[in-house]
Amino acid sequence: MYHWSINLLEVGDLRRDRIEGLLARLSEEGMDGIFLGPSGDLTYLTGLELFPDERCKGLMVSGAGCFGLVPLLYRQEMGERLEGIPLFVWDDREGFLGAFARGCASLGLVGKVIGINSGMRAVDLIEAMGVVRARYVNGSKVMDPLRRVKDPGELDLMRSASEMADRVMWRVFESLRPGVTERQVRDLILRSFEEMGVVPSFEPIVAFGANASMPHYSGGDGVAREGDCAVLDFGCRFKGYCSDMTRTFFVGDPSDEARRIYRVVLEAQLAGLAAVRTGVEAQMVDRAAREVISRAGYGEFFLNRLGHGIGLEVHEGPYIVEGNSNPLEAGNVFSVEPGIYIPGLMGVRIEDLVAVTPQGCQVLNSFPKEFMVAGR
Amino acid sequence: MYHWSINLLEVGDLRRDRIEGLLARLSEEGMDGIFLGPSGDLTYLTGLELFPDERCKGLMVSGAGCFGLVPLLYRQEMGERLEGIPLFVWDDREGFLGAFARGCASLGLVGKVIGINSGMRAVDLIEAMGVVRARYVNGSKVMDPLRRVKDPGELDLMRSASEMADRVMWRVFESLRPGVTERQVRDLILRSFEEMGVVPSFEPIVAFGANASMPHYSGGDGVAREGDCAVLDFGCRFKGYCSDMTRTFFVGDPSDEARRIYRVVLEAQLAGLAAVRTGVEAQMVDRAAREVISRAGYGEFFLNRLGHGIGLEVHEGPYIVEGNSNPLEAGNVFSVEPGIYIPGLMGVRIEDLVAVTPQGCQVLNSFPKEFMVAGR
Repeated sequence: MYHWSINLLEVGDLRRDRIEGLLARLSEEGMDGIFLGPSGDLTYLTGLELFPDERCKGLMVSGAGCFGLVPLLYRQEMGERLEGIPLFVWDDREGFLGAFARGCASLGLVGKVIGINSGMRAVDLIEAMGVVRARYVNGSKVMDPLRRVKDPGELDLMRSASEMADRVMWRVFESLRPGVTERQVRDLILRSFEEMGVVPSFEPIVAFGANASMPHYSGGDGVAREGDCAVLDFGCRFKGYCSDMTRTFFVGDPSDEARRIYRVVLEAQLAGLAAVRTGVEAQMVDRAAREVISRAGYGEFFLNRLGHGIGLEVHEGPYIVEGNSNPLEAGNVFSVEPGIYIPGLMGVRIEDLVAVTPQGCQVLNSFPKEFMVAGR
Repeated sequence: MYHWSINLLEVGDLRRDRIEGLLARLSEEGMDGIFLGPSGDLTYLTGLELFPDERCKGLMVSGAGCFGLVPLLYRQEMGERLEGIPLFVWDDREGFLGAFARGCASLGLVGKVIGINSGMRAVDLIEAMGVVRARYVNGSKVMDPLRRVKDPGELDLMRSASEMADRVMWRVFESLRPGVTERQVRDLILRSFEEMGVVPSFEPIVAFGANASMPHYSGGDGVAREGDCAVLDFGCRFKGYCSDMTRTFFVGDPSDEARRIYRVVLEAQLAGLAAVRTGVEAQMVDRAAREVISRAGYGEFFLNRLGHGIGLEVHEGPYIVEGNSNPLEAGNVFSVEPGIYIPGLMGVRIEDLVAVTPQGCQVLNSFPKEFMVAGR
């Protein structure tokens, strides 16, 4: 696992106001406490971004108080961020279970309902269940209502991160020509972000031709050939906040079907964006885009949900997917990324980030979306 | 999270011989099956390195057979790697629980003992427990006996990865002088690995002066000043296999105590290496190094275990820590990294990777360890 904490140290310090918001959510959810391992949740509350090793660590939040579960190795940095919060420190020799049990006992959580967030490993939970009797429940969604509404400061950081991705997309477009390898383009993306002083928010996806039929393709050996599609999906992290965008270009003249598929995906993406406003159910945005692709006869080749929320994490709430009937709220930021993936042949995906505003929505990406042929 | 699957695609394909070895281990451990999420375990068996999103996915292995838990988005690449293994595919709309339950039922795992490895999230386990009645146990160590003995091919890759890190360490040493920032050095490390066509195995740690008292410091704003220590801890990934090394240099003349601390850490590191041979308990190697530091009066400032195994993951078995009485075996590869960390003042760590051989051991790093002052 690879982790860019450097940029996250600017996110901020312990946010007692946000912890108050979490406590209100806990009682709504019937939880007595929640354990937050390394995750966007933990960063959102404390600014802490921890080295992702196998040492179990994090913050327990409950109405009776909080405690930090702290490997000795991290005592200094966790102590600074969790100022005023009791720390239960453990060392490599003894392991984390004793400290976890003492911490839970100190807050009277034994026998209670304890939420677990996405930052804890299943193997650590299994061990914890053996030493602290409690009802452990899925707390991964508890903080969604807080985190999915971005404040103006967060929105500014996400706009900047998206502008940087737009700039890199232009460099990528200019670099595309027959003979270029996927890895060369990937390295150009990484180098460009490095020059801007930011880091990628996830491993850039660069897929040519048939490789593009894998939405999360992770190879690098493909060589661009005349007529290939080129799917470019990347983003960066600016002061902790992520961008994420996708464009699909063509290297020389593509087939008529490729042109048709591109038109369908673009129409679907615009239909999705047009459906975005406060009060609309998230799933209605997915349907608006999906309907365009189904009507064109490509429904079976649109493999994924339309979009995902984004912020401190590349994937967070709100998810734009069938079954999510939560209404969109001003401050939500998510991707709109329909695609058509023809196994062994090609793929097209077009993705922007969009922020819901009181007036409607704002698309955070400015890079054009019309059909573009590179290498001319 | 950040993931460099590109280099892992070279690791290889489905290894039925290794799956056989795992099945033997399962019966030894009294498990009927084990679910392997994205992890070194999964890569070791299948060559699969999956995009680390929140979609629950992986491979269930049991005496009755195997199945792949596959998000629709990954059907193509997982299908290719898991050729001949039944896939239970789920899409974003329905979620993974139905596919997981159908897969477990198909192998008769309901009511049985199911191991979970380190690649599954606690929140997904909590959901799985609700749909598949079984005894879930910690399976994170099940594959250790297999993975911790590297074969000659794996050892070659790790030697190459360590040589690359040694080369980068020279460039880092030459770049150190008063006024340089931690981030500048970190970028030099990233750029150097990129030029070599490899990627970092973890976020490089560059810590000057007092920042070096945090073993996993992750800042970047520190500026080297005359007399500062500089801890450099990094490695790369070559065809999936990791290197990891640490050197501590000084920028201009340090204090007498800094010199003394360096001598103690170096003596401890050499004592650790000298204790490495087949048949020796892992914890005895930790003790050999720790005793040197304690005798010198710095025992309370040596915060971490002496070392960790390494291979497809930066941290894996065998762990060189008090309490691990497993005898070392030929083919084990692990770090030997004693350190002394004085809060608010400085830190010194010296780390090599060592491979246990039938004759004794081989240190994989060649970069010198004597006291070195940079910027001269």
